[in-house]
Amino acid sequence: MRIDVKEAAEFLRENNDYLILMHASPDGDTLGCGTALCGALQRLGKNAKAVCPDEIPHKFDYLFNACTEQDFEPKTVVCVDVADTKLLGDMKEVGDTAKLCIDHHVSNIDYAERTLLEAESAAACEIVFDIINELGVRFDAALASSIYTGVATDTGCFKFSNTTPRTHKIAAEMIELGADFVNINYEMFDMKTPGRIELEQAAMKTIRYSANGHIAVIYAPFSMINSIEGIDSDDIGALASMPRKIQGVDIGICVKEKKKGEYKASIRTSQRIDCSKIAQKFGGGGHERSSGCSFYEGTIEEAADRVVAESEEALRKAGII
Amino acid sequence: MRIDVKEAAEFLRENNDYLILMHASPDGDTLGCGTALCGALQRLGKNAKAVCPDEIPHKFDYLFNACTEQDFEPKTVVCVDVADTKLLGDMKEVGDTAKLCIDHHVSNIDYAERTLLEAESAAACEIVFDIINELGVRFDAALASSIYTGVATDTGCFKFSNTTPRTHKIAAEMIELGADFVNINYEMFDMKTPGRIELEQAAMKTIRYSANGHIAVIYAPFSMINSIEGIDSDDIGALASMPRKIQGVDIGICVKEKKKGEYKASIRTSQRIDCSKIAQKFGGGGHERSSGCSFYEGTIEEAADRVVAESEEALRKAGII
Repeated sequence: MRIDVKEAAEFLRENNDYLILMHASPDGDTLGCGTALCGALQRLGKNAKAVCPDEIPHKFDYLFNACTEQDFEPKTVVCVDVADTKLLGDMKEVGDTAKLCIDHHVSNIDYAERTLLEAESAAACEIVFDIINELGVRFDAALASSIYTGVATDTGCFKFSNTTPRTHKIAAEMIELGADFVNINYEMFDMKTPGRIELEQAAMKTIRYSANGHIAVIYAPFSMINSIEGIDSDDIGALASMPRKIQGVDIGICVKEKKKGEYKASIRTSQRIDCSKIAQKFGGGGHERSSGCSFYEGTIEEAADRVVAESEEALRKAGII
Repeated sequence: MRIDVKEAAEFLRENNDYLILMHASPDGDTLGCGTALCGALQRLGKNAKAVCPDEIPHKFDYLFNACTEQDFEPKTVVCVDVADTKLLGDMKEVGDTAKLCIDHHVSNIDYAERTLLEAESAAACEIVFDIINELGVRFDAALASSIYTGVATDTGCFKFSNTTPRTHKIAAEMIELGADFVNINYEMFDMKTPGRIELEQAAMKTIRYSANGHIAVIYAPFSMINSIEGIDSDDIGALASMPRKIQGVDIGICVKEKKKGEYKASIRTSQRIDCSKIAQKFGGGGHERSSGCSFYEGTIEEAADRVVAESEEALRKAGII
């Protein structure tokens, strides 16, 4: 059943003992939603806890200032920013009993009893912001920092095309109410570990261009990833966006070998190319500007060559080459 | 004489034939102000042109969609985002005849007949936004893109501590009115030339840490800058912020040798250290988190060593080491 913000707030007011589930490989939006909603419910005198199937990177520790740890028997499962219970890892079965899901993914499979879906929201935190207002809970600095984190991270700090006037208006209000935005933005967008810098440099050294500079490819083979200390999956994931940032590049490709012999190609494109179609040719998928696909045979160069060939075809179809 | 927005608008309505001066080494804020104000005055039927003493980098070309080129004899000089006529290069003398200055630098020397100064504005474009509203000119997409560019660039895309709720509210309104924010942000913040990437890699290879990783220094000697093709002063300038982005670094230093034997140290600090005080020891200056100073003798390493020694002293005083 699809419901609106008023109905979601009503449901949350009527029930108690909330278990709020955040998706695996957690990002700032799911964690911002979970901690803000948990904190808001606690301020209403409810029992609530926000949990994630995966370990939460330390850079997000501050989000848990928004809520306190409570010991109680959960009764009501709520999922935030979770389009499909497959994204809940070990907690999939708990997610299948969800009474409420709050989400902004158009791909949401309606697994919960009630779903509040606003696909035009840049971040699920925008919806949680509305719910907290509807619940009549006043924002303090900690709640504001959680909501700010979700809207900032899901929009690449207000850069991506999903950013709307409403995103900025919510950011304005959260800053007004004390969101610690300077430190949040430094931690989320600017800070890099020495390992991350070493990895970026090693990967960028592998760059090769094709189609007159419209395509750029970088590699991160197993040997490279394995030889650099102190890097995590976030660091490896961040390589994906690097080649597309080079002037003149319409299609940026990064091929990573996280496990020996298993390659993942990440594709990023300019507004002139829909890269989900390129990924689909290899059984992958994603969004128009950001997609990915996997390869389980051959060498890392061969995997890259196949994606490059398909990318050249896409450039030809678009009349760019 | 200090004036307010109403008085500035009144002055602009009463006069004509405007020459709007933007500062040398132009940035998004001065260019956003100049083109938006020029376009708004033209929409009121006035003659106006916006000029800059230096060549304007091509990435800013789109800003000139906000105004049209006009041929007329200028009578009224207006400076935007220009704190001191020294910043006008060859046009200093023209600037000295300014009837109006619109600025947000607290260091403004009040050289103009009338000065509209709002130091709490993150960007001078925030003030021009108010003036355009006061003039009753409706924003179209081109004017909105100019204003958006100023507020986005002067806040590092809403990351820096000068960002206020008002900054976000203006961004919201500009997006609503058609600012081409996705392309603007890509060009301003994400896109890098191959030369820029090569320079960044070469400079980052020189990194050395001191004070237990609280200080990081990189170099860009003349030989490095001279050996890389297709880089400009923007690319060299951008090196300044790199070392401070490394996890654990409180003081990031970049020493550049743009001219043989002439070194400029750029210092960036965390919220725990006021780097303007470090720069002042060497006759430089700047802001609390971003400052610089110059050296005209010795080697680049010696220049760096002097800044590092002073930085260690600052860390000691702050109780960090």
